[in-house]
Amino acid sequence: MEMTVKGAADLLKGAKDVLILCHQSPDGDTLGSGYGLYFCLKKLGVRARVLCPDKIPELFKPLLRGYREEPFDPALVVAVDIADAKLMGRLCAQYGDSVDLCIDHHISNTGYARRLLLDREAAGTAEVIFALAKEWGLAPDPHLADCLYTGIATDSGCFKYQNTTPRTHRIAAELMEWGADAAEINRAIFDTKSQGRLAAESALIRSIRYFCGGRLAVAVMDLATIAETGAGPADFDGLTALPRQVEGVEIGVTLREREPGFFKVSVRTSSYVDASALAAQLGGGGHIRAAGCTVRGTADEAVETIHQLAKEFLH
Amino acid sequence: MEMTVKGAADLLKGAKDVLILCHQSPDGDTLGSGYGLYFCLKKLGVRARVLCPDKIPELFKPLLRGYREEPFDPALVVAVDIADAKLMGRLCAQYGDSVDLCIDHHISNTGYARRLLLDREAAGTAEVIFALAKEWGLAPDPHLADCLYTGIATDSGCFKYQNTTPRTHRIAAELMEWGADAAEINRAIFDTKSQGRLAAESALIRSIRYFCGGRLAVAVMDLATIAETGAGPADFDGLTALPRQVEGVEIGVTLREREPGFFKVSVRTSSYVDASALAAQLGGGGHIRAAGCTVRGTADEAVETIHQLAKEFLH
Repeated sequence: MEMTVKGAADLLKGAKDVLILCHQSPDGDTLGSGYGLYFCLKKLGVRARVLCPDKIPELFKPLLRGYREEPFDPALVVAVDIADAKLMGRLCAQYGDSVDLCIDHHISNTGYARRLLLDREAAGTAEVIFALAKEWGLAPDPHLADCLYTGIATDSGCFKYQNTTPRTHRIAAELMEWGADAAEINRAIFDTKSQGRLAAESALIRSIRYFCGGRLAVAVMDLATIAETGAGPADFDGLTALPRQVEGVEIGVTLREREPGFFKVSVRTSSYVDASALAAQLGGGGHIRAAGCTVRGTADEAVETIHQLAKEFLH
Repeated sequence: MEMTVKGAADLLKGAKDVLILCHQSPDGDTLGSGYGLYFCLKKLGVRARVLCPDKIPELFKPLLRGYREEPFDPALVVAVDIADAKLMGRLCAQYGDSVDLCIDHHISNTGYARRLLLDREAAGTAEVIFALAKEWGLAPDPHLADCLYTGIATDSGCFKYQNTTPRTHRIAAELMEWGADAAEINRAIFDTKSQGRLAAESALIRSIRYFCGGRLAVAVMDLATIAETGAGPADFDGLTALPRQVEGVEIGVTLREREPGFFKVSVRTSSYVDASALAAQLGGGGHIRAAGCTVRGTADEAVETIHQLAKEFLH
């Protein structure tokens, strides 16, 4: 059942002993929303606890300032920013079927929860928590503002992505007036990188080969190169967008060797090539600007396969 | 003489044949503000022309859509986003002493112009142009919105930096409602890099050496390494912040060899080391979080000098 902000606000205000669930591999939006909701409920005199299936990254630890873990048997289970019960990870077995209220912004939400407060226009779930805070008439609070700003900045790529709306900016303005330490939060999220991540980036950049007058860029992360960097697998996550970001590149491809002779291929395009059509030629698929497939062979063979195919798509 | 927004708006509305000057090495704020002002004046029926001392970077060319160069003898010379007459570059000799109105946001503005509209709180000069547009009561216009959004996004680091205020966000919200293509502008400014820039980044990352348990990071760009990258000098601009961005680093240093055995040193610190005090030990200076000096010797000697000095500052 889909709820209104007012309906969800009433439900939560009248509740007691609320368990708040975050999704696995927690990011700034699920944590900012989860702890943000906790601090709202605390102000309302409602006891709450936040549960996260995975370890909380160091950079988001400041959100927990003032949080106190209290033991209780939950009377209401709330999932924040969890589009699918599977994303609860290790908590799915216990809570997958028993979420009383899901607060979310993903259009892909599967409707697994008994009640759903879903704002498909929100850049982050933290925008929805902000709407609840306003509905409750809560007084401005700097730490709550830090939580919600963290959620919004994370999911909007610091207001850079398509999902940013005028409302996103107006909420950010109000959160800054509440006292959110926006510059410091952004420094921690966007301008801090691990040594491993930086090594992975450098290796990936170095591996880029350009073809077709610079319109095709192919990065090749074979097993030997990956081992050399000393970076872990997670350090390579999200780097597949890099080759396409090079000036003049229409098709950016990243080949990542998963086992000897077996490459996972990510295809990104800038403006006119249909990435999914290209990937489909190799048995893969995806979206118009981002798609994927697999290729077998040596690194050089894999690059040549991509090169021959891609040039048919460029004009 | 400092002016109010109303005063400057009246002056410009009553003017004719306005020459608008941008600063050298033009960025998104001087160009977004300059062309933004041009399009405002066009709507008011005031003839104008934009003059920029250097080539306009490809990525900002879309701002010129609808711009028509008209020849005239200027009756009013307006400088936008130019804090100091010297920043006019090759135009300084002709216009340095004859600016009728300067519109700016730099607290360091030298007051070289006859009249000055200066908003020290504005993240970008484009915020001031927006205030003028509102004063004139101009109707929302998508292309004008693109110009002003470009200026604001550029100078605020897409709302990431300390100079971003609640007002900055509210103006961004309104410009999006006017039709600014924010996501595409941000992609062009923040997610596009030249091959040379990428090569420079990769080389700089690879050159980083860590000391003092990872609290000191030193990047060394010696002449041989710079030559290997194939990148131009400009490709290294702005990369000096990189070593400090590594997780756990308190002091980030970049050594750049300018001539054999002569290194320019950039020092950045995270939270407690006084960068200017450190640089002062080597005859340099600067600010608490960013400072500079020079060191002579081989690359290894220069690194060791920094290492020995820096460890005195770490605790």
